[in-house]
Amino acid sequence: MSGTLTLVGVGPGDPELLTLKAVNAIGAADIVVYPQKPDEASLALSIGEAHISANAIRLPIDVPMKVEREPAQMAYDQIGKTISDLLAAGKSVAYLCEGDPLFYGSAMYLLERMPTANIAIIPGITSLTATASVVGRPLAARNETLKVLPAPLDSEKLIAELSQTQSAAIIKVGRHFDRVRDVLVQTGHAQNAIVVEHATQARQKITPLADFAKDERPYFSTILCYKGDEAWGK
Amino acid sequence: MSGTLTLVGVGPGDPELLTLKAVNAIGAADIVVYPQKPDEASLALSIGEAHISANAIRLPIDVPMKVEREPAQMAYDQIGKTISDLLAAGKSVAYLCEGDPLFYGSAMYLLERMPTANIAIIPGITSLTATASVVGRPLAARNETLKVLPAPLDSEKLIAELSQTQSAAIIKVGRHFDRVRDVLVQTGHAQNAIVVEHATQARQKITPLADFAKDERPYFSTILCYKGDEAWGK
Repeated sequence: MSGTLTLVGVGPGDPELLTLKAVNAIGAADIVVYPQKPDEASLALSIGEAHISANAIRLPIDVPMKVEREPAQMAYDQIGKTISDLLAAGKSVAYLCEGDPLFYGSAMYLLERMPTANIAIIPGITSLTATASVVGRPLAARNETLKVLPAPLDSEKLIAELSQTQSAAIIKVGRHFDRVRDVLVQTGHAQNAIVVEHATQARQKITPLADFAKDERPYFSTILCYKGDEAWGK
Repeated sequence: MSGTLTLVGVGPGDPELLTLKAVNAIGAADIVVYPQKPDEASLALSIGEAHISANAIRLPIDVPMKVEREPAQMAYDQIGKTISDLLAAGKSVAYLCEGDPLFYGSAMYLLERMPTANIAIIPGITSLTATASVVGRPLAARNETLKVLPAPLDSEKLIAELSQTQSAAIIKVGRHFDRVRDVLVQTGHAQNAIVVEHATQARQKITPLADFAKDERPYFSTILCYKGDEAWGK
Protein backbone atom coordinates (compact mmCIF):
# COMPACT_ATOMS: atom_id res chain seq x y z
CA MET A 1 0.00 0.00 0.00
CA SER A 2 1.56 3.28 -1.04
CA GLY A 3 0.94 6.73 0.36
CA THR A 4 -0.19 9.89 -1.37
CA LEU A 5 1.78 13.02 -2.12
CA THR A 6 -0.39 16.12 -1.86
CA LEU A 7 0.87 19.30 -3.49
CA VAL A 8 -0.72 21.93 -1.27
CA GLY A 9 -1.13 25.49 -2.54
CA VAL A 10 -0.78 27.61 0.60
CA GLY A 11 -1.50 30.97 -1.04
CA PRO A 12 0.43 34.25 -1.10
CA GLY A 13 1.24 34.79 2.56
CA ASP A 14 -1.79 35.59 4.71
CA PRO A 15 -2.43 32.34 6.66
CA GLU A 16 -6.18 33.10 6.48
CA LEU A 17 -5.95 32.59 2.72
CA LEU A 18 -5.37 28.87 3.19
CA THR A 19 -8.31 26.81 1.92
CA LEU A 20 -10.16 24.39 4.20
CA LYS A 21 -8.84 21.62 1.96
CA ALA A 22 -5.26 22.77 2.46
CA VAL A 23 -5.73 22.95 6.25
CA ASN A 24 -7.10 19.40 6.30
CA ALA A 25 -4.33 18.03 4.08
CA ILE A 26 -1.59 19.66 6.15
CA GLY A 27 -3.10 18.36 9.38
CA ALA A 28 -3.41 14.80 8.05
CA ALA A 29 0.14 14.49 6.68
CA ASP A 30 2.75 12.20 8.25
CA ILE A 31 5.51 14.23 6.59
CA VAL A 32 5.38 17.92 5.69
CA VAL A 33 7.88 19.03 3.05
CA TYR A 34 8.56 22.70 2.35
CA PRO A 35 11.07 24.73 0.37
CA GLN A 36 13.58 26.78 2.29
CA LYS A 37 16.26 29.17 1.10
CA PRO A 38 19.58 29.41 2.92
CA ASP A 39 19.48 31.80 5.91
CA GLU A 40 15.83 32.64 5.38
CA ALA A 41 12.66 31.49 7.14
CA SER A 42 10.42 29.42 4.85
CA LEU A 43 7.38 31.43 3.74
CA ALA A 44 5.44 28.27 2.87
CA LEU A 45 6.12 26.83 6.34
CA SER A 46 5.12 30.05 8.10
CA ILE A 47 1.78 30.02 6.28
CA GLY A 48 0.91 26.40 7.05
CA GLU A 49 2.74 25.78 10.31
CA ALA A 50 -0.20 26.21 12.69
CA HIS A 51 -1.96 23.24 11.09
CA ILE A 52 0.87 20.68 11.13
CA SER A 53 0.18 17.70 13.38
CA ALA A 54 2.37 17.45 16.49
CA ASN A 55 3.45 13.96 15.36
CA ALA A 56 4.38 14.95 11.83
CA ILE A 57 7.95 15.03 10.57
CA ARG A 58 9.08 18.31 9.04
CA LEU A 59 11.33 18.02 6.02
CA PRO A 60 12.75 21.30 4.71
CA ILE A 61 14.32 21.13 1.28
CA ASP A 62 16.92 23.46 -0.14
CA VAL A 63 15.52 25.31 -3.12
CA PRO A 64 17.78 25.33 -6.14
CA MET A 65 17.51 28.88 -7.48
CA LYS A 66 18.36 28.11 -11.10
CA VAL A 67 16.24 25.17 -12.17
CA GLU A 68 17.79 24.80 -15.61
CA ARG A 69 21.25 23.96 -14.29
CA GLU A 70 22.50 20.52 -13.51
CA PRO A 71 22.91 20.88 -9.73
CA ALA A 72 19.28 21.97 -9.47
CA GLN A 73 18.10 19.06 -11.58
CA MET A 74 20.06 16.73 -9.32
CA ALA A 75 18.50 18.32 -6.24
CA TYR A 76 15.00 17.67 -7.61
CA ASP A 77 16.02 14.11 -8.48
CA GLN A 78 17.03 13.66 -4.84
CA ILE A 79 13.85 15.22 -3.43
CA GLY A 80 11.78 13.06 -5.77
CA LYS A 81 13.57 9.94 -4.60
CA THR A 82 13.20 10.80 -0.92
CA ILE A 83 9.48 11.41 -1.32
CA SER A 84 9.05 8.22 -3.40
CA ASP A 85 10.65 6.19 -0.60
CA LEU A 86 8.31 7.76 1.96
CA LEU A 87 5.28 6.99 -0.22
CA ALA A 88 6.45 3.40 -0.71
CA ALA A 89 6.56 3.09 3.07
CA GLY A 90 2.88 4.08 3.16
CA LYS A 91 3.42 7.61 4.46
CA SER A 92 1.25 10.56 3.48
CA VAL A 93 3.33 13.51 2.36
CA ALA A 94 2.19 17.14 2.04
CA TYR A 95 4.40 19.43 -0.03
CA LEU A 96 3.70 23.08 0.80
CA CYS A 97 3.81 25.32 -2.28
CA GLU A 98 3.68 29.12 -2.10
CA GLY A 99 0.72 30.40 -4.12
CA ASP A 100 -0.63 27.68 -6.40
CA PRO A 101 1.31 24.48 -7.22
CA LEU A 102 0.72 24.73 -10.97
CA PHE A 103 0.99 28.51 -11.51
CA TYR A 104 4.70 29.07 -12.08
CA GLY A 105 5.43 26.72 -9.19
CA SER A 106 8.39 24.45 -8.64
CA ALA A 107 6.07 21.53 -7.87
CA MET A 108 6.02 20.73 -11.60
CA TYR A 109 9.59 19.46 -11.28
CA LEU A 110 8.31 16.84 -8.85
CA LEU A 111 5.35 15.93 -11.07
CA GLU A 112 7.75 15.22 -13.92
CA ARG A 113 9.82 12.91 -11.75
CA MET A 114 7.00 10.88 -10.19
CA PRO A 115 4.76 9.75 -13.06
CA THR A 116 3.38 6.70 -11.25
CA ALA A 117 2.88 8.14 -7.75
CA ASN A 118 -0.50 8.89 -6.18
CA ILE A 119 -0.53 12.67 -6.37
CA ALA A 120 -3.30 15.01 -5.27
CA ILE A 121 -3.19 18.71 -6.06
CA ILE A 122 -4.88 21.42 -4.00
CA PRO A 123 -5.05 24.76 -5.81
CA GLY A 124 -4.07 27.88 -3.90
CA ILE A 125 -4.67 31.61 -4.09
CA THR A 126 -2.15 32.94 -6.61
CA SER A 127 -0.03 36.06 -6.17
CA LEU A 128 -1.98 37.32 -9.19
CA THR A 129 -5.42 37.45 -7.59
CA ALA A 130 -3.91 38.38 -4.21
CA THR A 131 -2.28 41.40 -5.84
CA ALA A 132 -5.53 42.45 -7.50
CA SER A 133 -7.44 42.09 -4.22
CA VAL A 134 -5.12 44.36 -2.24
CA VAL A 135 -5.15 46.98 -5.01
CA GLY A 136 -8.91 46.69 -5.50
CA ARG A 137 -8.69 46.63 -9.27
CA PRO A 138 -10.12 43.98 -11.63
CA LEU A 139 -7.47 41.86 -13.34
CA ALA A 140 -9.63 41.54 -16.40
CA ALA A 141 -13.30 41.65 -17.24
CA ARG A 142 -15.78 40.96 -19.98
CA ASN A 143 -13.92 39.81 -23.09
CA GLU A 144 -10.51 41.28 -22.29
CA THR A 145 -7.38 39.22 -22.76
CA LEU A 146 -5.26 38.83 -19.62
CA LYS A 147 -1.57 38.19 -20.04
CA VAL A 148 0.83 36.99 -17.39
CA LEU A 149 4.32 38.01 -18.49
CA PRO A 150 7.49 36.94 -16.65
CA ALA A 151 9.85 39.91 -16.46
CA PRO A 152 12.92 37.91 -17.58
CA LEU A 153 11.42 37.74 -21.11
CA ASP A 154 13.41 39.94 -23.47
CA SER A 155 12.17 43.48 -24.01
CA GLU A 156 11.21 42.87 -27.62
CA LYS A 157 8.86 40.05 -26.59
CA LEU A 158 7.41 42.09 -23.71
CA ILE A 159 6.75 45.04 -26.00
CA ALA A 160 5.12 42.82 -28.65
CA GLU A 161 2.79 41.22 -26.08
CA LEU A 162 1.93 44.46 -24.27
CA SER A 163 1.27 46.42 -27.43
CA GLN A 164 -1.68 44.14 -28.18
CA THR A 165 -3.28 44.09 -24.76
CA GLN A 166 -4.89 46.31 -22.15
CA SER A 167 -4.49 44.15 -19.04
CA ALA A 168 -1.30 42.43 -18.02
CA ALA A 169 0.52 41.29 -14.92
CA ILE A 170 4.30 41.30 -14.89
CA ILE A 171 5.65 38.67 -12.51
CA LYS A 172 9.17 37.82 -11.29
CA VAL A 173 10.14 41.48 -11.58
CA GLY A 174 13.19 41.43 -9.28
CA ARG A 175 16.34 42.70 -10.93
CA HIS A 176 14.50 43.40 -14.21
CA PHE A 177 12.64 46.39 -12.74
CA ASP A 178 14.46 49.19 -14.58
CA ARG A 179 14.07 47.49 -17.94
CA VAL A 180 10.41 46.61 -17.32
CA ARG A 181 9.66 50.22 -16.36
CA ASP A 182 11.18 51.44 -19.61
CA VAL A 183 9.11 48.90 -21.54
CA LEU A 184 5.87 49.97 -19.83
CA VAL A 185 6.57 53.63 -20.56
CA GLN A 186 7.15 52.74 -24.21
CA THR A 187 3.92 50.71 -24.55
CA GLY A 188 1.72 53.22 -22.73
CA HIS A 189 1.01 51.03 -19.71
CA ALA A 190 3.16 52.94 -17.20
CA GLN A 191 0.62 55.56 -16.24
CA ASN A 192 -1.81 53.08 -14.69
CA ALA A 193 0.74 50.52 -13.54
CA ILE A 194 0.99 49.66 -9.89
CA VAL A 195 3.72 47.75 -8.09
CA VAL A 196 2.72 45.39 -5.30
CA GLU A 197 5.39 43.91 -3.04
CA HIS A 198 4.64 40.92 -0.78
CA ALA A 199 0.85 41.00 -1.32
CA THR A 200 -1.20 40.05 1.78
CA GLN A 201 1.92 39.78 3.97
CA ALA A 202 2.77 42.08 6.90
CA ARG A 203 5.48 43.68 4.77
CA GLN A 204 3.06 44.38 1.88
CA LYS A 205 3.71 47.61 -0.03
CA ILE A 206 1.61 49.14 -2.83
CA THR A 207 3.13 51.87 -4.98
CA PRO A 208 2.09 53.39 -8.30
CA LEU A 209 4.92 52.79 -10.75
CA ALA A 210 5.11 56.53 -11.46
CA ASP A 211 5.97 57.18 -7.79
CA PHE A 212 9.21 55.20 -7.86
CA ALA A 213 12.29 57.41 -7.86
CA LYS A 214 14.76 56.80 -10.67
CA ASP A 215 17.16 54.81 -8.47
CA GLU A 216 14.50 53.11 -6.31
CA ARG A 217 13.57 49.47 -6.85
CA PRO A 218 10.89 47.20 -5.40
CA TYR A 219 11.53 43.82 -3.80
CA PHE A 220 9.66 40.60 -4.63
CA SER A 221 6.81 42.11 -6.59
CA THR A 222 4.12 41.90 -9.24
CA ILE A 223 3.21 44.82 -11.49
CA LEU A 224 -0.40 45.12 -12.58
CA CYS A 225 -0.71 47.29 -15.63
CA TYR A 226 -3.66 48.59 -17.52
CA LYS A 227 -3.63 50.74 -20.63
CA GLY A 228 -6.60 53.02 -20.59
CA ASP A 229 -8.12 56.08 -19.05
CA GLU A 230 -9.32 54.49 -15.86
CA ALA A 231 -7.32 55.17 -12.73
CA TRP A 232 -6.02 52.22 -10.77
CA GLY A 233 -7.47 51.14 -7.45
CA LYS A 234 -10.35 52.47 -5.45
CA MET B 1 -21.01 54.50 11.41
CA SER B 2 -21.22 52.64 8.15
CA GLY B 3 -20.81 48.94 7.50
CA THR B 4 -18.43 47.10 5.24
CA LEU B 5 -19.14 45.30 2.00
CA THR B 6 -16.93 42.24 1.60
CA LEU B 7 -16.58 40.75 -1.87
CA VAL B 8 -15.95 37.11 -1.04
CA GLY B 9 -14.33 34.84 -3.61
CA VAL B 10 -15.90 31.43 -2.92
CA GLY B 11 -13.85 29.46 -5.44
CA PRO B 12 -14.87 27.15 -8.28
CA GLY B 13 -17.37 24.82 -6.61
CA ASP B 14 -15.82 22.48 -4.06
CA PRO B 15 -16.85 23.95 -0.67
CA GLU B 16 -13.50 22.78 0.74
CA LEU B 17 -11.82 25.31 -1.55
CA LEU B 18 -13.20 28.19 0.50
CA THR B 19 -10.44 30.05 2.32
CA LEU B 20 -10.50 30.47 6.11
CA LYS B 21 -10.91 34.20 5.48
CA ALA B 22 -13.97 33.59 3.31
CA VAL B 23 -15.52 31.28 5.92
CA ASN B 24 -15.03 33.93 8.62
CA ALA B 25 -16.41 36.75 6.48
CA ILE B 26 -19.50 34.74 5.50
CA GLY B 27 -20.15 33.78 9.12
CA ALA B 28 -19.81 37.36 10.37
CA ALA B 29 -22.11 38.99 7.79
CA ASP B 30 -25.51 40.45 8.70
CA ILE B 31 -26.59 40.17 5.07
CA VAL B 32 -25.38 37.63 2.54
CA VAL B 33 -25.89 38.60 -1.11
CA TYR B 34 -25.47 36.10 -3.94
CA PRO B 35 -26.18 35.96 -7.65
CA GLN B 36 -28.92 33.67 -8.84
CA LYS B 37 -30.12 32.84 -12.31
CA PRO B 38 -33.81 32.21 -12.99
CA ASP B 39 -34.88 28.62 -12.31
CA GLU B 40 -31.41 27.58 -11.20
CA ALA B 41 -29.88 27.01 -7.76
CA SER B 42 -27.16 29.56 -6.96
CA LEU B 43 -23.71 27.99 -7.20
CA ALA B 44 -22.17 30.72 -5.04
CA LEU B 45 -24.79 30.11 -2.33
CA SER B 46 -24.33 26.34 -2.42
CA ILE B 47 -20.59 26.79 -1.84
CA GLY B 48 -20.89 29.19 1.10
CA GLU B 49 -24.23 28.21 2.60
CA ALA B 50 -22.94 26.05 5.47
CA HIS B 51 -21.14 29.05 6.97
CA ILE B 52 -23.97 31.61 6.91
CA SER B 53 -25.10 32.68 10.37
CA ALA B 54 -28.59 31.57 11.40
CA ASN B 55 -29.50 35.21 12.01
CA ALA B 56 -28.26 36.52 8.69
CA ILE B 57 -30.58 37.75 5.96
CA ARG B 58 -30.16 36.11 2.57
CA LEU B 59 -30.50 38.39 -0.42
CA PRO B 60 -30.44 36.68 -3.81
CA ILE B 61 -30.00 38.98 -6.77
CA ASP B 62 -31.03 38.32 -10.33
CA VAL B 63 -27.99 38.19 -12.57
CA PRO B 64 -28.27 40.23 -15.73
CA MET B 65 -26.75 38.04 -18.43
CA LYS B 66 -25.68 40.81 -20.81
CA VAL B 67 -23.88 43.43 -18.76
CA GLU B 68 -23.43 45.89 -21.60
CA ARG B 69 -27.14 46.45 -22.11
CA GLU B 70 -29.20 49.05 -20.38
CA PRO B 71 -31.47 46.74 -18.33
CA ALA B 72 -28.38 45.06 -16.88
CA GLN B 73 -26.80 48.40 -16.02
CA MET B 74 -30.03 49.41 -14.29
CA ALA B 75 -30.06 46.13 -12.35
CA TYR B 76 -26.54 46.81 -11.06
CA ASP B 77 -27.54 50.37 -10.19
CA GLN B 78 -30.36 48.93 -8.10
CA ILE B 79 -28.18 46.32 -6.37
CA GLY B 80 -25.60 49.00 -5.62
CA LYS B 81 -28.24 51.23 -4.10
CA THR B 82 -29.70 48.44 -1.96
CA ILE B 83 -26.28 47.52 -0.62
CA SER B 84 -25.39 51.18 0.00
CA ASP B 85 -28.54 51.58 2.09
CA LEU B 86 -27.64 48.49 4.13
CA LEU B 87 -24.10 49.78 4.72
CA ALA B 88 -25.46 53.20 5.75
CA ALA B 89 -27.59 51.41 8.34
CA GLY B 90 -24.38 49.91 9.76
CA LYS B 91 -24.89 46.40 8.40
CA SER B 92 -22.05 44.15 7.27
CA VAL B 93 -22.69 42.70 3.83
CA ALA B 94 -20.94 39.71 2.24
CA TYR B 95 -21.31 39.35 -1.52
CA LEU B 96 -20.53 35.80 -2.63
CA CYS B 97 -18.63 35.68 -5.92
CA GLU B 98 -17.95 32.45 -7.82
CA GLY B 99 -14.20 32.01 -8.29
CA ASP B 100 -12.35 35.26 -7.58
CA PRO B 101 -14.11 38.64 -7.38
CA LEU B 102 -11.62 40.41 -9.67
CA PHE B 103 -10.90 37.66 -12.23
CA TYR B 104 -13.61 38.16 -14.84
CA GLY B 105 -16.14 38.61 -12.06
CA SER B 106 -19.30 40.68 -12.00
CA ALA B 107 -18.26 42.25 -8.67
CA MET B 108 -16.42 44.93 -10.65
CA TYR B 109 -19.78 46.43 -11.61
CA LEU B 110 -20.43 47.01 -7.92
CA LEU B 111 -16.94 48.46 -7.31
CA GLU B 112 -17.59 51.02 -10.05
CA ARG B 113 -20.84 52.08 -8.45
CA MET B 114 -19.66 52.38 -4.83
CA PRO B 115 -16.49 54.49 -4.92
CA THR B 116 -16.82 55.76 -1.34
CA ALA B 117 -17.97 52.57 0.42
CA ASN B 118 -15.84 50.51 2.79
CA ILE B 119 -15.06 47.52 0.62
CA ALA B 120 -12.91 44.51 1.50
CA ILE B 121 -11.94 41.94 -1.09
CA ILE B 122 -11.15 38.30 -0.37
CA PRO B 123 -9.48 36.55 -3.29
CA GLY B 124 -10.77 33.11 -4.28
CA ILE B 125 -9.51 30.06 -6.13
CA THR B 126 -10.08 30.79 -9.82
CA SER B 127 -11.53 28.38 -12.35
CA LEU B 128 -8.11 28.67 -14.00
CA THR B 129 -6.05 27.08 -11.22
CA ALA B 130 -8.90 24.73 -10.32
CA THR B 131 -8.89 23.44 -13.88
CA ALA B 132 -5.13 22.93 -13.85
CA SER B 133 -5.32 21.09 -10.52
CA VAL B 134 -7.89 18.55 -11.70
CA VAL B 135 -5.97 17.93 -14.91
CA GLY B 136 -2.63 17.77 -13.12
CA ARG B 137 -0.84 19.93 -15.66
CA PRO B 138 1.11 23.16 -15.00
CA LEU B 139 -0.58 26.29 -16.33
CA ALA B 140 2.78 27.85 -17.03
CA ALA B 141 6.30 27.59 -15.72
CA ARG B 142 9.69 29.23 -15.84
CA ASN B 143 9.55 32.20 -18.22
CA GLU B 144 6.53 31.17 -20.26
CA THR B 145 3.81 33.65 -21.08
CA LEU B 146 0.35 32.61 -19.92
CA LYS B 147 -2.64 33.99 -21.76
CA VAL B 148 -6.24 33.93 -20.64
CA LEU B 149 -8.41 34.32 -23.71
CA PRO B 150 -12.19 34.72 -23.59
CA ALA B 151 -13.75 32.62 -26.32
CA PRO B 152 -16.08 35.39 -27.56
CA LEU B 153 -13.01 37.20 -28.99
CA ASP B 154 -13.06 37.05 -32.76
CA SER B 155 -11.13 34.24 -34.43
CA GLU B 156 -8.55 36.56 -35.95
CA LYS B 157 -7.61 37.89 -32.50
CA LEU B 158 -7.54 34.39 -30.98
CA ILE B 159 -5.28 33.13 -33.75
CA ALA B 160 -2.94 36.10 -33.42
CA GLU B 161 -2.61 35.59 -29.64
CA LEU B 162 -2.27 31.81 -29.80
CA SER B 163 0.27 31.82 -32.59
CA GLN B 164 2.73 33.58 -30.29
CA THR B 165 2.27 31.46 -27.19
CA GLN B 166 2.63 27.95 -25.87
CA SER B 167 0.30 28.07 -22.86
CA ALA B 168 -3.19 29.46 -22.92
CA ALA B 169 -6.52 29.00 -21.22
CA ILE B 170 -9.69 29.65 -23.17
CA ILE B 171 -12.52 30.72 -20.88
CA LYS B 172 -16.24 31.36 -21.45
CA VAL B 173 -16.26 28.69 -24.16
CA GLY B 174 -20.01 27.98 -24.22
CA ARG B 175 -21.56 28.41 -27.65
CA HIS B 176 -18.20 29.33 -29.20
CA PHE B 177 -16.89 25.75 -28.91
CA ASP B 178 -16.95 24.79 -32.61
CA ARG B 179 -15.17 27.96 -33.67
CA VAL B 180 -12.59 27.70 -30.86
CA ARG B 181 -11.85 24.10 -31.81
CA ASP B 182 -11.21 25.15 -35.41
CA VAL B 183 -8.91 27.93 -34.19
CA LEU B 184 -6.92 25.55 -31.98
CA VAL B 185 -6.48 23.08 -34.82
CA GLN B 186 -5.23 25.92 -37.02
CA THR B 187 -2.70 27.21 -34.44
CA GLY B 188 -1.37 23.78 -33.48
CA HIS B 189 -2.74 23.78 -29.94
CA ALA B 190 -5.51 21.22 -30.46
CA GLN B 191 -3.44 18.10 -29.95
CA ASN B 192 -2.64 18.84 -26.32
CA ALA B 193 -5.82 20.74 -25.49
CA ILE B 194 -8.09 19.48 -22.77
CA VAL B 195 -11.63 20.52 -21.98
CA VAL B 196 -12.67 20.74 -18.33
CA GLU B 197 -16.32 21.18 -17.44
CA HIS B 198 -17.39 22.26 -13.93
CA ALA B 199 -13.94 21.81 -12.36
CA THR B 200 -14.00 20.53 -8.72
CA GLN B 201 -17.80 20.10 -8.79
CA ALA B 202 -19.64 16.76 -8.58
CA ARG B 203 -20.52 17.11 -12.27
CA GLN B 204 -16.86 17.69 -13.27
CA LYS B 205 -15.84 16.23 -16.63
CA ILE B 206 -12.38 16.15 -18.20
CA THR B 207 -12.05 15.36 -21.90
CA PRO B 208 -9.19 15.75 -24.37
CA LEU B 209 -10.36 18.09 -27.11
CA ALA B 210 -9.52 15.45 -29.71
CA ASP B 211 -12.05 13.06 -28.15
CA PHE B 212 -15.06 15.28 -28.79
CA ALA B 213 -17.23 14.02 -31.61
CA LYS B 214 -17.95 16.50 -34.39
CA ASP B 215 -21.43 17.32 -33.11
CA GLU B 216 -20.64 17.05 -29.39
CA ARG B 217 -20.21 20.16 -27.25
CA PRO B 218 -19.14 20.75 -23.67
CA TYR B 219 -21.08 22.75 -21.10
CA PHE B 220 -19.64 25.50 -18.89
CA SER B 221 -15.99 24.86 -19.51
CA THR B 222 -12.39 26.02 -19.73
CA ILE B 223 -9.95 24.70 -22.32
CA LEU B 224 -6.30 24.43 -21.32
CA CYS B 225 -4.07 24.28 -24.33
CA TYR B 226 -0.40 23.74 -24.75
CA LYS B 227 1.57 23.70 -27.96
CA GLY B 228 4.44 21.32 -27.62
CA ASP B 229 5.44 17.70 -27.46
CA GLU B 230 4.52 17.07 -23.86
CA ALA B 231 1.34 15.13 -23.24
CA TRP B 232 -1.29 16.64 -21.00
CA GLY B 233 -2.02 15.35 -17.53
CA LYS B 234 -0.10 13.08 -15.23
